[in-house]
Amino acid sequence: MNEFEFIRRLREQVQSRETSSRVLKGIGDDAAVISQSLGRDSVITTDLLIEDIDFHRASTPPRLLGHKALAVSLSDIAAMGARPAYSFLSLGLPEEIWQGDFKDKFYEGYLALADKFGVALAGGDISRSKDKIVIDSIVVGEVSTRSAIMRSGARPGDQVFVTGTLGGAATGLKLIELGARLSEAPAVATGPSQDSEEHAIQSLLGRQLRPSPRVGWGIVLGTEQLASAMIDISDGLSSDLAHLCAESGGGAVIESASIPVDKDVIKLCGRRALDPLALALHGGEDFELLFTVSPENVDRLPRRVDGVEVSLIGEITDKSGSIRIREKDREWDLPAQGFEHFK
Amino acid sequence: MNEFEFIRRLREQVQSRETSSRVLKGIGDDAAVISQSLGRDSVITTDLLIEDIDFHRASTPPRLLGHKALAVSLSDIAAMGARPAYSFLSLGLPEEIWQGDFKDKFYEGYLALADKFGVALAGGDISRSKDKIVIDSIVVGEVSTRSAIMRSGARPGDQVFVTGTLGGAATGLKLIELGARLSEAPAVATGPSQDSEEHAIQSLLGRQLRPSPRVGWGIVLGTEQLASAMIDISDGLSSDLAHLCAESGGGAVIESASIPVDKDVIKLCGRRALDPLALALHGGEDFELLFTVSPENVDRLPRRVDGVEVSLIGEITDKSGSIRIREKDREWDLPAQGFEHFK
Repeated sequence: MNEFEFIRRLREQVQSRETSSRVLKGIGDDAAVISQSLGRDSVITTDLLIEDIDFHRASTPPRLLGHKALAVSLSDIAAMGARPAYSFLSLGLPEEIWQGDFKDKFYEGYLALADKFGVALAGGDISRSKDKIVIDSIVVGEVSTRSAIMRSGARPGDQVFVTGTLGGAATGLKLIELGARLSEAPAVATGPSQDSEEHAIQSLLGRQLRPSPRVGWGIVLGTEQLASAMIDISDGLSSDLAHLCAESGGGAVIESASIPVDKDVIKLCGRRALDPLALALHGGEDFELLFTVSPENVDRLPRRVDGVEVSLIGEITDKSGSIRIREKDREWDLPAQGFEHFK
Repeated sequence: MNEFEFIRRLREQVQSRETSSRVLKGIGDDAAVISQSLGRDSVITTDLLIEDIDFHRASTPPRLLGHKALAVSLSDIAAMGARPAYSFLSLGLPEEIWQGDFKDKFYEGYLALADKFGVALAGGDISRSKDKIVIDSIVVGEVSTRSAIMRSGARPGDQVFVTGTLGGAATGLKLIELGARLSEAPAVATGPSQDSEEHAIQSLLGRQLRPSPRVGWGIVLGTEQLASAMIDISDGLSSDLAHLCAESGGGAVIESASIPVDKDVIKLCGRRALDPLALALHGGEDFELLFTVSPENVDRLPRRVDGVEVSLIGEITDKSGSIRIREKDREWDLPAQGFEHFK
């Protein structure tokens, strides 16, 4: 059983209980939605990051780990069309890490990103761990009453959009595995071609280690009620599109030529036997937003927010569970090959 | 630097930031308090539990681990005088644990306790971990506007109370370390004296492995506005009383003879070279509530809630930072010797 099947079963167990709660959306979306009052709902997400599973100490500077811990949760809040408000952080550290300056640099990176979006760190927990660093990031956001954007709202005919570019974070991870390291200083030019390749490598490492959550896009899509359904791309486009379609009860066809493959991925892939389209379709952790817009709302969609563009990549169909990809007049099934923790 | 010093510094860093947030109480109490609207504040706590630090797999049945993960957070909510409402759970499991029935039994224990108090599990995260089980428990509770009970409200002359009995959980931990195990079935009588000793052992193991958060007391003290300050006893009475006094800017004198030492601790200690009073003063994880009541409110305090009695153990003084213990006409300093993760 993978974690998605288990979570589905757990959701059924929880839904069958009688709790007079104000949980509008519980288990099974990017975040939970809780009814508050005076026109406001809370949106809450938690993300667990564990050393040697979700990151490696040697290749992740502490400051960037602090940044990423918050970024992944801000991305979930954005995926609900909500504005982030405050946060909590649980941190488990081995004794020898506690004694060094890891915790100072980690919180430096965390708080710098929190400041950028006006998020207040309101609490958390600090614990010792045996030998691995453990992080649980919790962010609470806000939306107007009943205006959180769920995964479940897509309807046949809705257009499928994605922000930014895809494949960069997964390529960055592969580069790290090949030994590349993010340089603190800008790359030194040693020749025009090498310079540009080093620049591409550094940019892709940044996509993996210093992700930019699409907070601005989330707020715009939520406030203007432009998206019918939304999810963030954490596991990979093929998996996350399948999650969205499963919750909405539909299918999708996407256009291969419209997938916004990261330009640096294309630049580097030739020499390294990497397929740029596969990385864009199945690579995780780009933390872009994947959302659907009903035909009558498409004209109202801004072209860019905070400098990040959006691409139309396909359409929702009424064929439940069928995720197809089209290249000119050929069309085939797109299997969900994104990340899962358990098989 | 221990974690309390680090948290104090982090709190100063966070407080110096300008965030137009509704965080009424941030870092540094049992839970954060967030201003909502229409007469209600939210109270939020997170608790990280890590294998081989906070629990051991061999001595903790999965069902009880699920129970305890929620219980420790419910205790924090009770310590704010709040009513628990909904919860989140982040769980990191090694591959081989995922494949077994651990997760089913764990959620069984968690959900049984959640049901008891009408708490709705609203979300969380599931991740793989390298080799240790990792749990982060998040509970959100509610209080009337501005009526959460902080650690900081105690004033000189306020009376100090504690619910239930102390020392049981720490003794239970020592028994586990000595090889005792909680039996699923009731102890079989093999003679009057052995029977009663086995009963005491099982009861103390239960205090460690199956703690009862004082949810009812928390709700009564919050609703009736009876307590001026409150904290739950997770690190140990001596440490938690010091935390409360530090936040309130006062000191305390407690009466040795009034400490409600667990009867089973007294029964077992003779043969095992354990000092029952030391266990009650410094042992952690009893999850009782320690609170202060102003003299004019003492008469309104109920004697018991949900069958759990309360003991008057001392008084708040104006001697900042001075925690004293008195036995008849002798009096001495009570050092904070409770649990800390880092020295």
